Amino acid sequence: MTTTVPAYGTDAADAPLAPMTIPRRATGAEDVRIEIDFCGVCHTDIHIARNDWGRSSYPIVPGHEIVGHVTEIGSAVTRFAVGDTVAVGCMVDSCRTCPACADGEEQFCEAGFTATYGREDLKMPGHLTYGGYSTAVTVDQAFVLRVPEGLDPAGAAPLLCAGITSYSPLAHWGVGPGQKVGVIGLGGLGHMGVKLAHAMGAEVVMITTSPEKGADATRLGAKSVLISKDHGAMEAAAGSFDFLLNTIPVGHDTTPYLGLLKRNGTMVLVGAIEPLEVHGGGLIRGRKRLAGSLIGGIAETQEMLDFCGQHGIVSDIELIGMDAINGAWERVISGDVKYRFVIDLASLRT
Amino acid sequence: MTTTVPAYGTDAADAPLAPMTIPRRATGAEDVRIEIDFCGVCHTDIHIARNDWGRSSYPIVPGHEIVGHVTEIGSAVTRFAVGDTVAVGCMVDSCRTCPACADGEEQFCEAGFTATYGREDLKMPGHLTYGGYSTAVTVDQAFVLRVPEGLDPAGAAPLLCAGITSYSPLAHWGVGPGQKVGVIGLGGLGHMGVKLAHAMGAEVVMITTSPEKGADATRLGAKSVLISKDHGAMEAAAGSFDFLLNTIPVGHDTTPYLGLLKRNGTMVLVGAIEPLEVHGGGLIRGRKRLAGSLIGGIAETQEMLDFCGQHGIVSDIELIGMDAINGAWERVISGDVKYRFVIDLASLRT
Repeated sequence: MTTTVPAYGTDAADAPLAPMTIPRRATGAEDVRIEIDFCGVCHTDIHIARNDWGRSSYPIVPGHEIVGHVTEIGSAVTRFAVGDTVAVGCMVDSCRTCPACADGEEQFCEAGFTATYGREDLKMPGHLTYGGYSTAVTVDQAFVLRVPEGLDPAGAAPLLCAGITSYSPLAHWGVGPGQKVGVIGLGGLGHMGVKLAHAMGAEVVMITTSPEKGADATRLGAKSVLISKDHGAMEAAAGSFDFLLNTIPVGHDTTPYLGLLKRNGTMVLVGAIEPLEVHGGGLIRGRKRLAGSLIGGIAETQEMLDFCGQHGIVSDIELIGMDAINGAWERVISGDVKYRFVIDLASLRT
Repeated sequence: MTTTVPAYGTDAADAPLAPMTIPRRATGAEDVRIEIDFCGVCHTDIHIARNDWGRSSYPIVPGHEIVGHVTEIGSAVTRFAVGDTVAVGCMVDSCRTCPACADGEEQFCEAGFTATYGREDLKMPGHLTYGGYSTAVTVDQAFVLRVPEGLDPAGAAPLLCAGITSYSPLAHWGVGPGQKVGVIGLGGLGHMGVKLAHAMGAEVVMITTSPEKGADATRLGAKSVLISKDHGAMEAAAGSFDFLLNTIPVGHDTTPYLGLLKRNGTMVLVGAIEPLEVHGGGLIRGRKRLAGSLIGGIAETQEMLDFCGQHGIVSDIELIGMDAINGAWERVISGDVKYRFVIDLASLRT
């Protein structure tokens, strides 16, 4: 039976988030009903709610960094039991038959994966999917992740987007011991990138425009800090990096960064879904590579969570109540968060 | 003893090529003296002679697609004998000790490789290196290639730049059977790319702005032709290519081409040493890669020549006499050549 749960969302691009009530589908045979304990706040939540990309449908209930516990399972659910600590990320379904899905790369599903919020809910016709700024969610077991024991559940929530977005390219391109890896930009993605690349055994350099972030970067695992506005320092570091994780969220000139790469080195973009300046010579000389990466597949997301469990990695967070969300969004926009807001959904329960 | 030989060259960016006499060093212990039979005409010859890149030193004697025969060997030369048909490409020396040289990637020598023309000749102080628009050259055996028997020596000359520039990325990125490979641009590089990718077993599609090039492309080995100005055809081909060899020589918008790649596909630039338009989303969605490639190492160049020997691949050429060079350059600039001019150096001998 469809139930209703409290949530925070918006009906329009120019309206603040406000309390609303949303439906959640009855727990089908393959479904897991999850009581949400924590939900991370991703900049994408703001872009979608405010229709920055022009493709939003309303109402929007954001949130795709969900950690909670199982309260009910469908008759065919074998992988989860009531009481398990579980997680849901950016995807709640995909076609499951295309080559990408067959390869475990559901994030590139040729039919388009079903995003955790703001997309047509194929299992509840007439409704959109609604995200984790709510007290409960019903998700097909194939898209539910297991949270390793011992990880702080609030700090684990941002692993579901910021964590996997950083982990996937580091793993895909084989980052490990003996490599010098630069993480460009110290925000939600970048701070996870530093922690993960360090845990993978690489020598990590934080590359930032902000000298004041240096101390924090070394605390997170960076061996050193490179100030990208310091032309002398950039020159001295030219040709010294095996890999660069570029988390800059807006268009920029890639030339100074490509210059940091060694011969055959790779820079992966995870943030800038915008036009970039790239000089062909910067790729041709040294046979360098510029690549992109988008979150990660479901199996890879579980692999990332297990890796974080083994290494005790969670996000650095600031925990807030649901009613503080509009102020938190303003602080996300101004870059004033270290490094992720997480909503304690206990604050939304009556 | 230093000898002099006839050549064609220029003393200034704005002067046409004209006859001149240049010195060639005495045959040292490691040297091979080569009587030049044929030399290909590369667009780079024109750029350097006319100082298009602002770094030229004069006099310039162009030519880095050299095929000839050995007339003398130094006392320590073990790999070549008088009479051998040999070749010299874009490099005549490198530091031989840096990591790139140690890896057989002399084209990325950290000290800068010694280009076949227009660079300081470390073995003949006070002189620049002079290229293949001349009757003879003296080259260290480590930078001399062997031309397989059975290959037409005139048609083989362009393999030394156009051939290796196309071969290296195809080999490096594992192009082979079962793959759909697009070659963008049908000039000197592109026509070699079509022949080589076809010989490697890939399904080759010629991607060009010019419908009239279609018939020629299929003769060269392309299975089909995609007209890049035909938006409907480009749309229909979206997401279908494993690999793209991009030979466009000038800056351009990469977006339409990146859209042709499959998930995890790669486009390699071999021509455009200029600013490019790249959209981050075009790389992030589908985890695509944009890479560069520059000629190839010496061992890889020999591998390419051997591959061409096995498959009977040479360049399609138009053979000219040395005195026709200035007119030929004008035709290169206007794209009026199928697909490479080659100079018959017999025309320069008295």
